[in-house]
Amino acid sequence: MIAEIIAAGSEMLTPHRQDTNSLYLTERLNALGVAVAFKTIVGDNLQHLSDAARIALHRADIVIFSGGLGPTEDDLTREAVAAALCIGLSRSPEILTAMYKRFAERRVSMPENNAKQADVLDGADVLQNNNGSAPGQWLDTVVDGHRKLVILLPGPPKELMPLFTEACEPRLAASLPERHFAKRWLRIALMPESKVDAIAAPIYQTYTDVESTILSSAAEIQLHFLCAKPTLAEAQQRVDELTSKVEDALDEAVFSSQGEPLEEIILLRLQMRGLTLATAESITGGMVASRLTGVAGHSDTYIGGAVTYSAHLKKKFAGVSDEILKQHGTVSDQAARALAEGIREQTGASIGLAVTGVAGPGPLLDTDSIEKPCGLVFVAVSDGVSTESLQKTFTGDRDRIRTFAAQQALDLLRQKLI
Amino acid sequence: MIAEIIAAGSEMLTPHRQDTNSLYLTERLNALGVAVAFKTIVGDNLQHLSDAARIALHRADIVIFSGGLGPTEDDLTREAVAAALCIGLSRSPEILTAMYKRFAERRVSMPENNAKQADVLDGADVLQNNNGSAPGQWLDTVVDGHRKLVILLPGPPKELMPLFTEACEPRLAASLPERHFAKRWLRIALMPESKVDAIAAPIYQTYTDVESTILSSAAEIQLHFLCAKPTLAEAQQRVDELTSKVEDALDEAVFSSQGEPLEEIILLRLQMRGLTLATAESITGGMVASRLTGVAGHSDTYIGGAVTYSAHLKKKFAGVSDEILKQHGTVSDQAARALAEGIREQTGASIGLAVTGVAGPGPLLDTDSIEKPCGLVFVAVSDGVSTESLQKTFTGDRDRIRTFAAQQALDLLRQKLI
Repeated sequence: MIAEIIAAGSEMLTPHRQDTNSLYLTERLNALGVAVAFKTIVGDNLQHLSDAARIALHRADIVIFSGGLGPTEDDLTREAVAAALCIGLSRSPEILTAMYKRFAERRVSMPENNAKQADVLDGADVLQNNNGSAPGQWLDTVVDGHRKLVILLPGPPKELMPLFTEACEPRLAASLPERHFAKRWLRIALMPESKVDAIAAPIYQTYTDVESTILSSAAEIQLHFLCAKPTLAEAQQRVDELTSKVEDALDEAVFSSQGEPLEEIILLRLQMRGLTLATAESITGGMVASRLTGVAGHSDTYIGGAVTYSAHLKKKFAGVSDEILKQHGTVSDQAARALAEGIREQTGASIGLAVTGVAGPGPLLDTDSIEKPCGLVFVAVSDGVSTESLQKTFTGDRDRIRTFAAQQALDLLRQKLI
Repeated sequence: MIAEIIAAGSEMLTPHRQDTNSLYLTERLNALGVAVAFKTIVGDNLQHLSDAARIALHRADIVIFSGGLGPTEDDLTREAVAAALCIGLSRSPEILTAMYKRFAERRVSMPENNAKQADVLDGADVLQNNNGSAPGQWLDTVVDGHRKLVILLPGPPKELMPLFTEACEPRLAASLPERHFAKRWLRIALMPESKVDAIAAPIYQTYTDVESTILSSAAEIQLHFLCAKPTLAEAQQRVDELTSKVEDALDEAVFSSQGEPLEEIILLRLQMRGLTLATAESITGGMVASRLTGVAGHSDTYIGGAVTYSAHLKKKFAGVSDEILKQHGTVSDQAARALAEGIREQTGASIGLAVTGVAGPGPLLDTDSIEKPCGLVFVAVSDGVSTESLQKTFTGDRDRIRTFAAQQALDLLRQKLI
């Protein structure tokens, strides 16, 4: 069984908008054991849309349309699918009555063009939309002797998602052979993708019944393992076995084996030990703090800190001495260590975490009169007993350097907490 | 002239990865006056890919393939296009020699499978890739009596973008009638899309020769105006005229008419007046600071500040009194004003900006023993002479509330600087 997703809407053929519904639909379809083989994005053009529908009905078993079910002249999915299947559309009196009723309740008269949202493909079941006015449609039909499932869904994600999950998934599951899926997910900070794969591939390649995916994003690699079996226990056993072998091989580089972000892992570890944390950020200017405060329920653990962007605030809020700034500069191992120690002392937190560096573009003439190259970063963590620090040079633009610097600061703290 | 973009790669049919090259290609094609009518995403499957190529060659004038040009068995774009066009592939001795040379320079022997990257479609021009090993290809051909331009590009954006811009755009421009494009872009903070459109639509709808697009993202609306004319002066005149009419109608709600982000506008205004800024953030925990430090070259203007997440740090770093916290709570107009005034005094900045609120999930039992609802936000700005503040209630999840709170803080400061 393969599926095709057709996203209808001219806005998705501009440089500014992208179809994102298909990511959600793909995840849900995969969980049912259905692979998505094609995605097509097409504008609000009856000819283009009906041609795309015809092609999809030929090459896929399940064809899901998103968008084009609204009341405007640009909403053409119903008409296009009817044309592609050479079937008719009938206006449903039930849907129409419900629409008139809804407008009447709001004491406004229904604009005439809204009525087309009541047009239903011959033979289709109506999928009631509790979050918007355009209902979905489900058609179980035959094209060229092959069974085809045709699903029409509204475009807004807030309407599409519940409609697919509640109305379509149970029907799809009933039409498909029973399979159970188990999934695991390893997250690795700051290791190059090629290095992760060199370690992981020899292991996951021996698990041919587990689908392995390696994904690289800013300063992080993710390994996803997915296994489908007739029972959940079988699937879970295979995926757990593979995950623990890969985790052993990657050792401490793995920061999460259940998908939690790095900042959440850190906050949980600190909380377990009853420790508090404060940050002093220069190059990252609040990125570490905003990641830590993005996790709900940890305001007793992360107490805050300072954005010590100027030399003055490094002294004022983290007590860094003039001597260090003059002798070693603001971007130095000594400054990073002094920031970590100072923010800890000033705030009374158990642990101080600091990051300083040159985000660029271009080098920095530092307070020690020495030019520091763009990408140079120092991170430090102090618990009052000892202070650890690390020097790194990151490449790329300002955004990338800052993202890597924030990740490196958090990862240094994670290492200290192991 | 219409174009179709085909993205080849099984990873883009997972829930985790999306084709993004097409956004860049669409922007560049639009600038040349070429509309993208279809986008197709297809996996690493020879049959699927050659079928998709055949369909695209039938319905579009320009067909651009991204991805599938690498050395592995999964890289099938060359073979699929050859099959769709019923033409051959020849191994180019020049490309092969260059590849051997490159490997020799790195003192490694070239793996045999790399040689397939030298396979060129019969009649195609090779587009030299200076950022990777797989060259692009350009084929000007005829299908069913119609001229077709077929372009093969490597998948990695770092390779695709320069190759398209440098090697393809001049050739495309030479094949198309001359048109010049002018573009303007208004950005509006914190106004609902429907309200912006109610004001702007009656104006832009009278400019039928200007393409108007309204885009809504987190706490911001953008209005894009694009006009194509035989000369740049004509296009610019129309788009400027429309932009200034809409800007007049929206008045102070518009924060940028050239596309700059809000934080950059603020930093430029502060810099022009020789003012410095410091921030004290509670609910946003560094988001305002990280936006301000994301703009290069303003470290003399934004000096830093504090992430006053705990009540203790509100006192310590921004001098907020125990009395205010006990009487009014940490989430109150009084606390926001005290934070703005205090961070200004503590840091010596000309202006202090502060934000406090409840990010949720759920309400907060505040230090004044009163429960504050999730989404309640106070922002304040102080210049030592006067302090302005604002109370808002935002809806949505933690992320959305924090994003809106940060935007509201920055917009309050912008209003003060007008």
